[in-house]
This record gives sequence, structure tokens and C-alpha cells, in this order.
Amino acid sequence: MAFFIGRDRESRRAYGFNEVALVPGDVTMNPDEVDISWKLGKLKFEIPFLAAAMDGVVDTKFAVKMGRLGGLAVLNLDGIQARYDNPKEVLLKVASAPKGKATQMVQEFYKKPIKMKLIAKRIREMKKHNIRTAVSTIPQNALKYGKIAQDAGCDIFVIQSTVTTVKHISTKYDALDFRKFCSSMKIPVIIGNCVTYKAALDLMEAGAAGLLVGVGPGAACTTRGVLGIGVPQVTATVDCAAARDYYYKKSKKYVSIITDGGMDTGGDICKAFASGADAVMIGSAFAKSKEAPGKGYHWGMATPHWNLPRGTRIYVGTSGTLEELLYGPATTDDGTQNLVGALRTSMGSVGARDIKQMQLTELIIAPAIKSEGKIFQKAQRIGMGK
Amino acid sequence: MAFFIGRDRESRRAYGFNEVALVPGDVTMNPDEVDISWKLGKLKFEIPFLAAAMDGVVDTKFAVKMGRLGGLAVLNLDGIQARYDNPKEVLLKVASAPKGKATQMVQEFYKKPIKMKLIAKRIREMKKHNIRTAVSTIPQNALKYGKIAQDAGCDIFVIQSTVTTVKHISTKYDALDFRKFCSSMKIPVIIGNCVTYKAALDLMEAGAAGLLVGVGPGAACTTRGVLGIGVPQVTATVDCAAARDYYYKKSKKYVSIITDGGMDTGGDICKAFASGADAVMIGSAFAKSKEAPGKGYHWGMATPHWNLPRGTRIYVGTSGTLEELLYGPATTDDGTQNLVGALRTSMGSVGARDIKQMQLTELIIAPAIKSEGKIFQKAQRIGMGK
Amino acid sequence: MAFFIGRDRESRRAYGFNEVALVPGDVTMNPDEVDISWKLGKLKFEIPFLAAAMDGVVDTKFAVKMGRLGGLAVLNLDGIQARYDNPKEVLLKVASAPKGKATQMVQEFYKKPIKMKLIAKRIREMKKHNIRTAVSTIPQNALKYGKIAQDAGCDIFVIQSTVTTVKHISTKYDALDFRKFCSSMKIPVIIGNCVTYKAALDLMEAGAAGLLVGVGPGAACTTRGVLGIGVPQVTATVDCAAARDYYYKKSKKYVSIITDGGMDTGGDICKAFASGADAVMIGSAFAKSKEAPGKGYHWGMATPHWNLPRGTRIYVGTSGTLEELLYGPATTDDGTQNLVGALRTSMGSVGARDIKQMQLTELIIAPAIKSEGKIFQKAQRIGMGK
Amino acid sequence: MAFFIGRDRESRRAYGFNEVALVPGDVTMNPDEVDISWKLGKLKFEIPFLAAAMDGVVDTKFAVKMGRLGGLAVLNLDGIQARYDNPKEVLLKVASAPKGKATQMVQEFYKKPIKMKLIAKRIREMKKHNIRTAVSTIPQNALKYGKIAQDAGCDIFVIQSTVTTVKHISTKYDALDFRKFCSSMKIPVIIGNCVTYKAALDLMEAGAAGLLVGVGPGAACTTRGVLGIGVPQVTATVDCAAARDYYYKKSKKYVSIITDGGMDTGGDICKAFASGADAVMIGSAFAKSKEAPGKGYHWGMATPHWNLPRGTRIYVGTSGTLEELLYGPATTDDGTQNLVGALRTSMGSVGARDIKQMQLTELIIAPAIKSEGKIFQKAQRIGMGK
Repeated sequence: MAFFIGRDRESRRAYGFNEVALVPGDVTMNPDEVDISWKLGKLKFEIPFLAAAMDGVVDTKFAVKMGRLGGLAVLNLDGIQARYDNPKEVLLKVASAPKGKATQMVQEFYKKPIKMKLIAKRIREMKKHNIRTAVSTIPQNALKYGKIAQDAGCDIFVIQSTVTTVKHISTKYDALDFRKFCSSMKIPVIIGNCVTYKAALDLMEAGAAGLLVGVGPGAACTTRGVLGIGVPQVTATVDCAAARDYYYKKSKKYVSIITDGGMDTGGDICKAFASGADAVMIGSAFAKSKEAPGKGYHWGMATPHWNLPRGTRIYVGTSGTLEELLYGPATTDDGTQNLVGALRTSMGSVGARDIKQMQLTELIIAPAIKSEGKIFQKAQRIGMGK
Repeated sequence: MAFFIGRDRESRRAYGFNEVALVPGDVTMNPDEVDISWKLGKLKFEIPFLAAAMDGVVDTKFAVKMGRLGGLAVLNLDGIQARYDNPKEVLLKVASAPKGKATQMVQEFYKKPIKMKLIAKRIREMKKHNIRTAVSTIPQNALKYGKIAQDAGCDIFVIQSTVTTVKHISTKYDALDFRKFCSSMKIPVIIGNCVTYKAALDLMEAGAAGLLVGVGPGAACTTRGVLGIGVPQVTATVDCAAARDYYYKKSKKYVSIITDGGMDTGGDICKAFASGADAVMIGSAFAKSKEAPGKGYHWGMATPHWNLPRGTRIYVGTSGTLEELLYGPATTDDGTQNLVGALRTSMGSVGARDIKQMQLTELIIAPAIKSEGKIFQKAQRIGMGK
Repeated sequence: MAFFIGRDRESRRAYGFNEVALVPGDVTMNPDEVDISWKLGKLKFEIPFLAAAMDGVVDTKFAVKMGRLGGLAVLNLDGIQARYDNPKEVLLKVASAPKGKATQMVQEFYKKPIKMKLIAKRIREMKKHNIRTAVSTIPQNALKYGKIAQDAGCDIFVIQSTVTTVKHISTKYDALDFRKFCSSMKIPVIIGNCVTYKAALDLMEAGAAGLLVGVGPGAACTTRGVLGIGVPQVTATVDCAAARDYYYKKSKKYVSIITDGGMDTGGDICKAFASGADAVMIGSAFAKSKEAPGKGYHWGMATPHWNLPRGTRIYVGTSGTLEELLYGPATTDDGTQNLVGALRTSMGSVGARDIKQMQLTELIIAPAIKSEGKIFQKAQRIGMGK
Repeated sequence: MAFFIGRDRESRRAYGFNEVALVPGDVTMNPDEVDISWKLGKLKFEIPFLAAAMDGVVDTKFAVKMGRLGGLAVLNLDGIQARYDNPKEVLLKVASAPKGKATQMVQEFYKKPIKMKLIAKRIREMKKHNIRTAVSTIPQNALKYGKIAQDAGCDIFVIQSTVTTVKHISTKYDALDFRKFCSSMKIPVIIGNCVTYKAALDLMEAGAAGLLVGVGPGAACTTRGVLGIGVPQVTATVDCAAARDYYYKKSKKYVSIITDGGMDTGGDICKAFASGADAVMIGSAFAKSKEAPGKGYHWGMATPHWNLPRGTRIYVGTSGTLEELLYGPATTDDGTQNLVGALRTSMGSVGARDIKQMQLTELIIAPAIKSEGKIFQKAQRIGMGK
């Protein structure tokens, strides 16, 4: 259905997590028997969860824990970890900065130059624990860091910026040639972020093994407010998954779609898979783990931008170990714990045997905001200080 | 009308109570003369209200009162009542638990094993007062408890889980054969919960006498947040009622549709009937009665889940006797008291002579949220502590 | 466009004031030169404003003031005015009742029987000031009071209940025969409330001179919460105005459409006319006048219902004289003062020369809720106690 | 797609900034290389930003700064600047007025008559700094001030009222003949405000060099609440831009579309260009600059209306110099600083080489309100005083 936002100007309606819901199946399954594994190229993972390359979420210790639990954490090469020999104390300063000063302090800390030797060192710190490792950088630094990472034993290389396209126009600098870069690397390359069918298809044809989907939806991200840009994640994931399916049909190469950002609860995560995701990348929810280096705080990769920060330091608190967040038992009922259990139970309830079936389950449009009464009940509880 | 949530992905729009409203009729009726009785199989009830099988709502005393007032209360066999000889003191502990600890405490109390002899005892406690009795359990326990309950004189057996389907796949355990179970029982079996046409039809064909409709809408339920699953009650009821009508045409057997959950006020209840319900099952609203064992608190059946709780202890307070809640006089004007009177008045205003006519009355789509001004007026009153 | 709220169940979308907006005209007019007069039968009024028959809004003194300012106030015959010799002190008690007790106190005061001689007395009190007078009662009392009011010199008789239809079914009492009643009266009869094309047409054919349009939209009314019934005022007014136009074509008799309730600001009032109203009936906004007997409080006519109250005592405060509310100057900018000036200016801006042209001006669908930012700005101001 | 708001009454859906979002391009660009210049007739400006003719935003000093930074500030001829020899102290009084008294005080200050000699003086004060100057007045004063302004060296003349149309009907006064006025002026004339295709086309044919688009959307404007009139800015801009394109095709004269009001953040500004704007006029955002004479307060031009004020004094605070607001570096991440940088980055991300390409970029419909959870998180932060 087409809508018009004005004279002769047609527009699509895009949907976010809070606007849709899953429909129970006519057949259900034992949650313990659903298969939630996924593959990136030839690498198979037990659980389809990635931890976002954010300094408040992933350090080497966190990555080791995540790897052991069956998932994958991505270490940010453009942040604190590769700038400071002792990142811990810097992270502590950010966490304890007063509210109004946080963005400026983050900007300040990120001015210190990257040390190339720290890149290899961090990867080896993780690799010696026999886990799969992944590191992330922006397109401008990919050529510089890619080889170093690969030689240090890294398993997956991630290139990520707010909006990434195969074709980037500039007369002042050379844009990264993704096709050349991917074919030069021996390890799989994940590229992001994108949200449209065409951009996704271009990146697949350039050789990406996986795509990060999401522009502007994350809790620590203010891209939509600052730039006006943002495609809600349900529509973005559906569109990029359609590109994946088309590309697979044509080339027989399966490029994984990783929904990145905007998922607050297990419910949102389940909806991402139902929209077509092969895996999800999580920031805020993992920042709440005891293992997260941000000590209950986290911030996006565009936060330190010196001239136009687009992200904010967010306080999420600490609510349990990473293992509890992933596998339970949940001690709260708000959908932020036992994410693996939630995914399994949801798949059982809709009757999806594996992620591929989950991608095809029915989604209905059903706004989350319930009765007026309930909203004010909540407001009242808040207003009364509890 | 079809909507697209992304490339080649069509989706239905589903509606909840707060999005619709009843339209006054062109003919009106004297409210005292409308007929609100309903039938479950051959059992006729004066009023179409069931009390939900929640431990904070129904104990044996409550059930007796409800039966005398013309309705039906369902006793939960998987909770406190069949685990403790003296459930009262356990319920008191839950009610007085500090806010942050409630879910964990509930989880703890529900670890104590069920005592089979308590099941028969509770039913007999109710039955000796000459009322209709109903008990509820999950599918896994139906075979175990069904015979006991029937032999103890129970009138109706309820099988209930978050999502119930005739076909459940597992290689680890045997799923309940609903068809076999229903035909083995001499008393009518109500099964729930379901929300779709197909699942409802399957359960009808398996022999259900009534269906509970509702997944994820209740105030004490967080299924949608945790699992992403939830179909708003207007659409769920319309769809399951359509299955009922189709099945009746085909088989001449009338299976009652009982909308379960998500109704906060008399207005919501009226809308459930206008969506096609034969009866409604109420939790929160009855938890407010003086007779409710939760003393102003209640919690869902998925709250005690040891690994993935999906429900929360909610404080609703105590606002009147069950008789006042059902028959008035109302001392407040917010639609939470005199629910029978509200249903009668509403039916009179739309000109519905009985529940079957009420099921056909016009519903319009009309979002409840009124002017911005009013929202902030309300917020202001809250903010000012009044 | 048709929507489906479930399988085979079609539904209309209805709209309220906050969902629409007026569009500026391609031609504009000098506001001082637009004609805002209207007629009820042969009675012409300078301004299209009626004051609602609510005890907190209209007493005889208020009615006199309103009449002198060009409008029409309706006195409630079923309330305090005809039950008490000295209504002032009763009203004062309601105004000073503690919040939780107000509904009950109102219920109590309305138990005192009506004194027939007070009806004539109140009308004469108004009539001696040479203004047009109107009184209101419920259908059950119309036969009893109609003749008395007419004989006392009343100009207009109003029959009003939550939902009024020509055909009302009861075996226990005789419903009012509107056709007979209207033809027996020598003064014009306004009937309400209705919201649908068919019900409006029926009432017109029964002889109504004007119709009150609105079920469930007023600030002091909780009909939608209690009964689930409510049609947003834009759609209700458009539909009843369509009935008026059809009936006029057929019979050459013009029956005035008076939108009643739900208008908080001048903007809402302007939208009522743009939806097809000939006049508006105002409650809350006039309760704020210094002349209102409720001293800043008011309550609906269904509030005193002994068994199912559907209305609440609302505090609106006192913000100016009735003359200021109608003609300005406004000392605030929130659209609650200088309502006549607002209507004139709005008509000038859309280029409507008179009410008939205003009824045809363009309305767009444009939800009032603006940017997320603004909502929270407002919430913040509230939260900060300012 | 057409909607019906009632029987036989069709209505368009109009969209505002918060309901749409930009979609990243398939090609991206280096933000430093996008061209954001624009032209008004033959005058070229480096940046497409105008400061609104509001007394709290623009005085002569502010205008000089704005001109030097590449933009254009418009001085209000109907306000404080042309009424008082020393406007500074009057502005200070408004800023320090207690909240409840502000509107009345503003009404009072604007009663002092305009001094004609101050008009020329103010223009010369600005002109001697070698910047482009613009002044604004209402249609009634255009003939009186136009010549004076032009002779004083003014570069651009602005005629502005809430709703301006070529045809205005009055028998009491002579409406301004725009066609005659424009052809009599040697400098370009900007006229506003309008929001519809037809009104825009009429004003173009009358000789406008630019049009101000926006009725009722600004933060300091309460037109929609008071008069019911208001067209959301996305639809208004799309429609007026369509008129511009049609008029250019026909006449080869390019009339600039300047979106005026309702833009809170860089994101909103980017969406205005994507809707078809050639430039934007900003009030609130510039009132936050250190150079703004309102000292953190501002108010609309309809605020001083003696009888029907439609605007309010708003406190926005002071957050940086005008240069920082325009060019950064931003010290916050909420999209209110470095507006030029935001526009450039946004254009780079959607792959727009210049404003004309930006006008054609894809907009999707995507409501800003995210998950229920997030709203209450925010509310909670507010409630907790943080």
C-alpha cells in the first residue's frame, strides 16, 4: 500500500519492533529441541548473538566469556582498547564522569592516537583462550588494520560506520574499495551498517560474509535526531533479508544478516529473527552484564566524534552475569534476562524448528501501547517515586 | 486491507480494546431486560464472567462467592492451593514481599511439590456449597489431575498454558493428546490459550467445550515483552469467534469463546462481547475484591517459571466486595465497578437483546488517546501528587 | 477505505478533534466581517454557543448573562436547581467535598425529590430578564415537565440522555413517543445525544428542531471507559450533519446540529464547525467562568447515577468572566479564552464567510502529537513543578 | 490513498517531521564536498539558514553575526526594535517577567507606537557591517515600511502574517495588493506564511521571490490550539515545493521555498530539505545562542496580539555561540548544535551532492516514538529529577 506525504510524493511506511508482534503457531514445539545455531561463512556458532563493538560493552575478558558461552564479541579497534595500555582506568573515568560532561570527556579520551602494536596484542589476549575472535574498525582504517588483525590470528574482520555503501564519492581521499579488500582477506569480513535492499545487495556482491543491519535505532545512538536518518529495524531487516535471499538464489553464496541495535528485550530479539535475521548484535542489553567494562554505562561509536557527536553515554546498570543474561535463570520478568531461553521459548510457541523457519513466521502489526489507563498507571508509579 | 512491513512481506493489522469503541444503536433497550446468560455445553450461567485461575484471585472461598453470584471461578491446581495445607499464610507472605523480591519469592514458593490429596480436598470444599466448580492445570498435568478432579465432583476442567495447540512436537516427552483426553472426560473441558482461527478450530475439533482466547494481553503478563508474542484481544476474539461460527455451521456443536485477559474496565469487557465473546475471564479486576486471597496483589501463572518468568506481581489494591464489583452500586466512575450493570447498560445502549446480538454490534476504530491537552492535564495531576 | 479488525469483520475508522486540523484558505477574510449567527427553527442567535445543562455550569444567573452575550444556556431540570430551594449552598458543598468523596456526595444530593413548583420558578427567574431560556430533562420526565416549562414561558425544551433513540424497547415502562411529544409542544425541542446518521435521521423525522451530537467525548464523562461506547466527535458531527443535509433536501426543514462535548479549546470548537456543526454546546470551558455556580468544579449528568455513575467531578479552576471567555481579551494563549474571537479569526483564515461555508472547509488528518522531544519538554516542565 | 473522516467526507493525511525519516543512500558522499549554498533571486547565500523575525532571536548585532557566518537574519519591524530607542532593556524585562505574567507584559510593551525613523536606523546599523540585510512586517504595514527599508539599503523585504493569501476580503480596509507591491520594489520580497499548493502558486504569480512555509508548527506558536489551523511541515513543504516546480516549468522563474518553524533538531532540518525546501527559517534553535537578544527566551509574532494572543514566551536556555550552533563543535548529542555539520553529514549519507538532490531523496513514514519501554525510561529519568 502506498501513502502520499504530499502532492505527487509517495512514501513507504516502515515498521519498528514495538509496532509488530509474533503470532503463536498452529503447531508448537518443545523449546529445548529448537535449533538456534547459525553460520558466518563456514564458521558455525551455537547461539546467534553478537556483542557490539562498543567500548563500554566489549573488552578482551568479556570477549573470552562470550566466546565460551557460544556467541561472538566484537572488539572495537578505534577506541580505548587500542589507544591505552591500561584501558580499564580510562573506562572507569568515563563511568564516573558527571552527566553533563560525559560526551565531552569521551571526545577527549578518543583524541589519543591508536597504537598499532596494541591491536595485535589485544587479539592475542583473546585468541590464547581458544575462542573465535572478531575486531571492528571504520572503512578508513580497514586497509591499515586488516592485515595486522588477520596475522594476529583474528577470525573475523568487521568494517562498520553509520552508513556504509560500496560507492562513496570524494575527491579529497580514496574511499575503501570493498571488493578488493574482501578478496584480499583470508578471513570473513562483516560490513555495516546498511538498511536498504540495494545497499545490501551491493555489499554482498563486494564480498561481505555478513551484513550489519541498522541505522539509527540503538539506545545509545541519536542518528535520527541529529541527521534525520533512520529506518526502523523490522523493515530494514525484512528488506536486507530479501536481498540475501535474492543473492543466494543468484550466486549460491549465503550472506548472513545481522540485525544490529534497537533491541531492548527478548521480545525485540525474537522479532528481529522473525523479520529475517540470521543473528543479532546487542549493545545495551550486554552492557548490563557484570563482565561489561563500562560498569553499567555504555556509549556508541559515534559518541566521540569531535565535531558532531551522535550518541550518548547511557546508564543501564548491572543486572547479572553474562551467563545469566544469556541462559538465565531470569530474576526479573521484563524480558532482559535469559535471552537464549526467550528465543527458544518463542520459537517453540510459533512452531519454528530452526532460525530459517523462524524467519518465515507470521508478524502482525500491533502497536505496543495498550490502554490509556495502563500508561497512566505506569506514570503514576513513576510520579510517586517508585 | 493489506500492509507491507518490508519487501514482499505482507502483514495484517491487529486491534486491541483501546483502539476500538462501540457505536450506539438506532434502537435502544431497557438494560434490565437484556439477557446476559450464557452456556458452556449444557451448563447455563446467569452472568458471563469467569474468575481467572490465578492464586491471588481465586481460592475456595472466593469460588463459592462467585458461584453464588451467578458466575464461575476457576481454581489453579498448579499453584499454592495444591501445594500447601494452609495456603493463606503463603499468600500473605507474597503480598508482603518487598517489590524487588516478589518474583523470586513466588518462584521459591512454587518449588514445593503438588500434593494430590489436596486437589480433591479443595474441590470438595467448594462443591459442598452447591456451586459449579472448575479447576485448571497445564497440559502436562492434565492426565494426572483430570480423573481426580472429575471424581471429586468437579463440573468443568480447564487446561491452560501460554500457547496451546493440538499438535505439539517433542521427541523428549509425550505431548497431551487433547482429542483422547476430551473424549475420556465426562465433564466439559475448556482449553486455552489460543488466538488464531486455525488453532481455535483444531482445539474445537479435538473436543473442547470452550476456548480461552488471549496470548500476552493481561496486566500481570509480560509475554509480549519476553517472547515478542501477542495478538491484541479484539482481533484474537473476532478470529476465534469466526472459527466458532464456522465450526457450529459444520458440526452443530457450539463451542464457547471466552476472552481471557487484557480487560481493565467495563468498557473493555463490553468490547470483548462485541468482538464475539460468549464470556470473559477476569484477573486483575477481581483481584481488587475484598474476597480475593491476594489481598490486593496478584500474579500470572507464568510468574513462577523458574528459568524464564513472564509475569509480575501487580498491586491493584482492594476496592469493594465481589458483589459490588459485579452488581454495584459503583462508588467510583472509572469503569471498574458494577461490571454486570455496565454490560447491561452498554447492551441496552447498542440495542442488543442478548449476548448473541451483542456479538454483532458495530465496532469502530477510534483510538482512546484524546487531546494532547488532556494527557498533560492528567500527567499534571499526577505530577502534583494529587 | 475499509479496515478489518479481524476475520470477515470490517470496521470504520472514526476521528476526533486532536486527529484533524483546518487548512488555511486560498482566500482569507477580515475576521470582523464573518457572520457567526445561527438559527434554531425561527429563533436566531448572535453566537453559536450553548452552555451545557450541567449543575456546575448553568444556574439562572449564569443563564441571564449568557443570554445577554448572545448565546443560550440550558438549565438542568433534573438536578440541584429543581430539588433545592437554595441550590447555592448545595453547590458549595459539592465544590468543597474531598476528592475521593465527591461522586458519592453528588449521588446523595440527587436523591432529594424534584419539586415541580421550582421548575416554573427557575424559568420565570430567567425570563424576567428578557432573554431566551432553555431547560433540559431526560426522556422519562419530558411529558411531566414539558407542559410546565412551556407554560412558564420557556423558549426551548431540551430532552437529553446518554444515548437517545426514537425507538426504545421495554416491557416494563412506556418509552417516550418523541413524535407525539414534539408535535404537542409549541416551542422547539432539541433532542440528544446521538452520533449516527440513522439515529439522527430518526430524531429529525420525529420532529426535533435541533440535535445534540456526542456520546462519550466530554471531559466530565467516562462513558467510553464504563460502557465501551463512544464515537469521536469529528466523525459523529460529519455523519449527523450529513443526515441534516439529506433531511433538508427531502423535507425542506433545517434541523440544527449542535456538537456537544469534547471541545477543550477554541481550536476544537473551530473543528466542530468545520465538521458540520451549526452550534456547539460547551461544558468544561464555561465551568471556568466566574459566573459558573460550580466555583471551578463541574460534573456530568450521569455522575449522580446511583448504581453506575459515568462522570466525575472535575476541577477546572476559574479563569475569567464569561464575557472574557467568549469575547476576550485573552490573557492566556492556550485557546481557552476569547472563543468567539478564535472562531472569527479561524473563519477569516480559512476564508469562510459564514457558518455554512465553515462547514465545508477542508479538514486534514494530522495527529496533534508533535515531536517526541516536545512531549518530553512538556513532561519535564511538569516534573519540575513549574 | 484517501481516508474518510465521516459520511461522504474525504480527507488527506498530512505528515510532520516526527513521522518521517530519511533513508541512507546506495551511494554516499564526503560531507565536506556537498554544496549547501542556495539563492534568493540573484542573491547567493553560503548556508541555507535564516533566523526568524522574532524579537527574542534577532536584533542588529545578531543579524551582523549571522550575515558573517553565511546566513541571513530577518529583523522584525513590528516589534521592540522599531518601538524603543533602547530595545535591550525592554527585552530584559520580558526575559525576567514571572511565568504567568509574560504574555500580558508582552502585550503591554507592543502597545507603544512604531517610530518610523528607527526603521531606517536599524537597517543602517546592520548594513554598515557589509552584510545582507532583511526586515519583516505584516501586510498592513508593507506599503508604509517597504520604501523606507529599501531606501535605507535593505537587501530583502519580508511580508509575514499567520496566513497570507493574495486575495483577502474586507469591506472595512484595503488589503495589500501583493502584485503591485512586489513590482514596485527593487529588492526581492519574501512572503509568508502559506502551506498549500494553490496559495503558494498565487503568491508566486504575484511576484514573490521566496515563500515562507508553515502555519502552526513552531514551538512558540499555539495557532493550532487556538484556531484549529495547522498543516504539518513535511506535507506543507512538499506541496509548496510542488507549486515552485510547476511555476518554474511554466515561467522559468525559480521562487525559493523556505520552511519556517517546527524544526527542533538537525534531523528536522534535514527532513525539511528532503521535503523540498531551498532554505529553512529557524526560531527556537537560534534563540539558544549567546547572541540572541532574548537571553534564552523567545516568543512568536502573534504573542502580543491584544485580543487573541497565539504564542507563548518559551524558555529555551542558552547553549553556545551562534557559530557553535551552526558550525560546531557540538558539545551535546541531541541534534541542536552544529546544524550545518548535521546537514552536510546527512546529505553525505543519503548521497545528495547539493540541495536540489537533497530535495529528491527518499523519505519513509516511520513514527519517532520507539518502544514503550524507552518512553518510560525517559519519563523515569525525568521523574527522578535527573
